[in-house]
Amino acid sequence: NLNNLLKKTHPADIAHLFRYLDLKEQRVLFHLVEDVDTAAEVLSEIEHSVSAQLLEQIEKETIVHVLQHMPYDDAVDIIQNMPEELAEEVLDSMQDDCSDEIEQLMQYQEDTAGGIMSTEIFSLREDITARQAIEALQEAEDVEMVFYLYVTDMYNHLVGVLSLRQLLMVPPGRCLRDIVSPDVISVRADTDQEEVAQLVAKYNILAIPVVDDHNKLLGIITVDDVIDVMRQEATEDIYKMAGASEEELMYGYKSFKIARLRLPWLLVNLLGGVVTGYLMWWFQLTLKEVIALISFIPVITGMGGNVGGQSATIVVRGFATGRIDFTTLRQVFFKELRVGLIMGLVCGLVVGGIAIVWHHNPYLGLVVGSAMTIAMTVAATMGVLAPAFFKRIGIDPAIASTPFVQTSNDITGILIYFGMATLFISNLH
Amino acid sequence: NLNNLLKKTHPADIAHLFRYLDLKEQRVLFHLVEDVDTAAEVLSEIEHSVSAQLLEQIEKETIVHVLQHMPYDDAVDIIQNMPEELAEEVLDSMQDDCSDEIEQLMQYQEDTAGGIMSTEIFSLREDITARQAIEALQEAEDVEMVFYLYVTDMYNHLVGVLSLRQLLMVPPGRCLRDIVSPDVISVRADTDQEEVAQLVAKYNILAIPVVDDHNKLLGIITVDDVIDVMRQEATEDIYKMAGASEEELMYGYKSFKIARLRLPWLLVNLLGGVVTGYLMWWFQLTLKEVIALISFIPVITGMGGNVGGQSATIVVRGFATGRIDFTTLRQVFFKELRVGLIMGLVCGLVVGGIAIVWHHNPYLGLVVGSAMTIAMTVAATMGVLAPAFFKRIGIDPAIASTPFVQTSNDITGILIYFGMATLFISNLH
Ligand SMILES: [Mg+2]
Ligand SMILES: [Mg+2]
Ligand SMILES: [Mg+2]
Ligand SMILES: [Mg+2]
Ligand SMILES: [Mg+2]
Ligand SMILES: [Mg+2]
Ligand SMILES: [Mg+2]
Ligand SMILES: [Mg+2]
Ligand SMILES: [Mg+2]
Ligand SMILES: [Mg+2]
Ligand SMILES: [Mg+2]
Ligand SMILES: [Mg+2]
Ligand SMILES: [Mg+2]
Repeated sequence: NLNNLLKKTHPADIAHLFRYLDLKEQRVLFHLVEDVDTAAEVLSEIEHSVSAQLLEQIEKETIVHVLQHMPYDDAVDIIQNMPEELAEEVLDSMQDDCSDEIEQLMQYQEDTAGGIMSTEIFSLREDITARQAIEALQEAEDVEMVFYLYVTDMYNHLVGVLSLRQLLMVPPGRCLRDIVSPDVISVRADTDQEEVAQLVAKYNILAIPVVDDHNKLLGIITVDDVIDVMRQEATEDIYKMAGASEEELMYGYKSFKIARLRLPWLLVNLLGGVVTGYLMWWFQLTLKEVIALISFIPVITGMGGNVGGQSATIVVRGFATGRIDFTTLRQVFFKELRVGLIMGLVCGLVVGGIAIVWHHNPYLGLVVGSAMTIAMTVAATMGVLAPAFFKRIGIDPAIASTPFVQTSNDITGILIYFGMATLFISNLH
Repeated sequence: NLNNLLKKTHPADIAHLFRYLDLKEQRVLFHLVEDVDTAAEVLSEIEHSVSAQLLEQIEKETIVHVLQHMPYDDAVDIIQNMPEELAEEVLDSMQDDCSDEIEQLMQYQEDTAGGIMSTEIFSLREDITARQAIEALQEAEDVEMVFYLYVTDMYNHLVGVLSLRQLLMVPPGRCLRDIVSPDVISVRADTDQEEVAQLVAKYNILAIPVVDDHNKLLGIITVDDVIDVMRQEATEDIYKMAGASEEELMYGYKSFKIARLRLPWLLVNLLGGVVTGYLMWWFQLTLKEVIALISFIPVITGMGGNVGGQSATIVVRGFATGRIDFTTLRQVFFKELRVGLIMGLVCGLVVGGIAIVWHHNPYLGLVVGSAMTIAMTVAATMGVLAPAFFKRIGIDPAIASTPFVQTSNDITGILIYFGMATLFISNLH
């Protein structure tokens, strides 16, 4: 009954259940899957943060057996997700062609084309006919997801690509060499996975081959794995912009480890906050004289932070999707500057008006309003310049952009506000 | 020379150039593309914000001609991207089968399966043989991207699906009915596009059929369009979280329109900032007595905002990718609570120590440190509860989550800090 239910359930759906179970239940469920190919598919579909802990509960022999029935790219992911000692034991136990291929793939850096590619490619020689190609396809058992055929010469150089559909359309006696499209979009093994994803998205292809410097075919990356990359890269950027790290997803609910990951950037921002407080301390005489000034500290620094955060977010995301580059950056900068200025003028008028109505001092309204306008305009420009600068010098512009922007806009906002207040101090009494 | 260069360039690459050209140059480049099928592909690949303005520059007859050579789902996108009057004129001019199909597709809401699907499907009847299927495939010219074959009964009910590869592997005389996999993953026309994307990602499929309530085949959505949806939905969330809207991408560099889009949320946060300032005004006696308190206002509100922003970001993204749902929310809440507490204790100790060293008052250190710890812990919990609450009542949890979190943490931070300071006011002198 339960077994029958499991047999009818798609492996991806079985994998989805694991997050709702505790470790013991997960272990039981995993062993309930009788067919080893299904078990391999289930394991490859379980979220990494869940499977990392599950693998410590399963016997090594079972892990080895399941890994041998898994596509190499998925097996590499699983092994890289294990604690190091377990990974070594597993690879030693495998000691066969499987483990050779896997170890070779593990030579590549994780977030590159080589690190995500599959080496189980279906490639054909250019001198065979379409009919022979179809026969070869009918005999090939191991290769999954064949929709493009990669055609090579006798030295394994990538000569061209054709789709299964094209194969069916041509006269059976024609040589592959004469059918293929020679303009193949390909990547190198060290190409960043984000770039691989951008190419697949741009050219609307279902797979992309990986070649070496001599154009020899090394592997392919299929669109389903590209989709995983896109999701991962978006999550990575979203977490980074908030000052967190998507690495913490590996730690599940382990609070100390997660706190340790987030603390460094938090402490940097803490120092920034202390610096801002020091500036306010610097201006304490101004503040003591015109205590009404405190009522607008939060709104001026807060609006600066919001506007700066918006500009930074837009630029970081623009770089990531390729819609902004250093050529279009200039127009983007001036656009954000104008938008910041317009919003700053509106908000400055509103808050200046509130200041006059509340504290009955037109000069206070002037100081508050102009400080707001200037702070928001400055925030908008810094929100563009900071990520652009980081990207220019090779740092990921997403790094903690939101906390960084918040903190630096607190500092500039305080300087602008109290600076102007001190200038006009006589009028503010 | 230029023409030859264009002929060798992939349409997606030609489309990429448009963003670097002004309107006149774009018009020239577009007309340089001689082949109308290529022109159609180029137009469908140009970024919407760029093509919206380009279309106003091109003669209506040219637009109609190009649209007639474009897949219907892409034509629908182009038309929905035009100003309304132009769209009506174009549809009137088309007045043929093309425009009927397009108008039918435009009945569906934009961000749903119906709104993104293609109706140019290659479907076959279940009672034909594999050999006949291959022959049909060889004769079909118009349909692009055929890698799955959808098999229907005589009433157009979706019976099953098979891949081109499977078609090649089976005996030619076998009926499709006996080959197909009956467990087809499908969606309804009103399914949200985000859910469509999640299904395609989960089951690693290359296309997903759209059916009506009676399981009749309406259209298909191919994985390349799913990739566009994923990117768009991620951008939408990222923009929303910052308090902006990805609608502004349609406005290019038009600053007034963009400012008008962002201002509503900004003004809401402005009011929140004024409220925070009012609270500080409320506590002005405390502040006047112990002016040293101002030096820690920015760090306490700032850290609260950072931590709250992190928790909110993680929860919003978790809901979007399906990794967090209302079942796992409880564990996520307690995890963020613990993480917030740990980080709050560390930061509280650091900033409390700074307060003692700077102002030589251990009670100030105690007030500042505990206020920091409490504020950060409260921020972490609110960062989980707020998005969860919005999602529960049907509002997109991403809506302005960052500005909202920043502002509410300013308010709670001030209340906690000055509340404690007022309690311990005698010790703080
Ligand atoms: Mg990997
Ligand atoms: Mg695309
Ligand atoms: Mg794969
Ligand atoms: Mg995969
Ligand atoms: Mg990356
Ligand atoms: Mg990135
Ligand atoms: Mg659409
Ligand atoms: Mg997948
Ligand atoms: Mg399409
Ligand atoms: Mg498309
Ligand atoms: Mg949406
Ligand atoms: Mg969304
Ligand atoms: Mg702030």
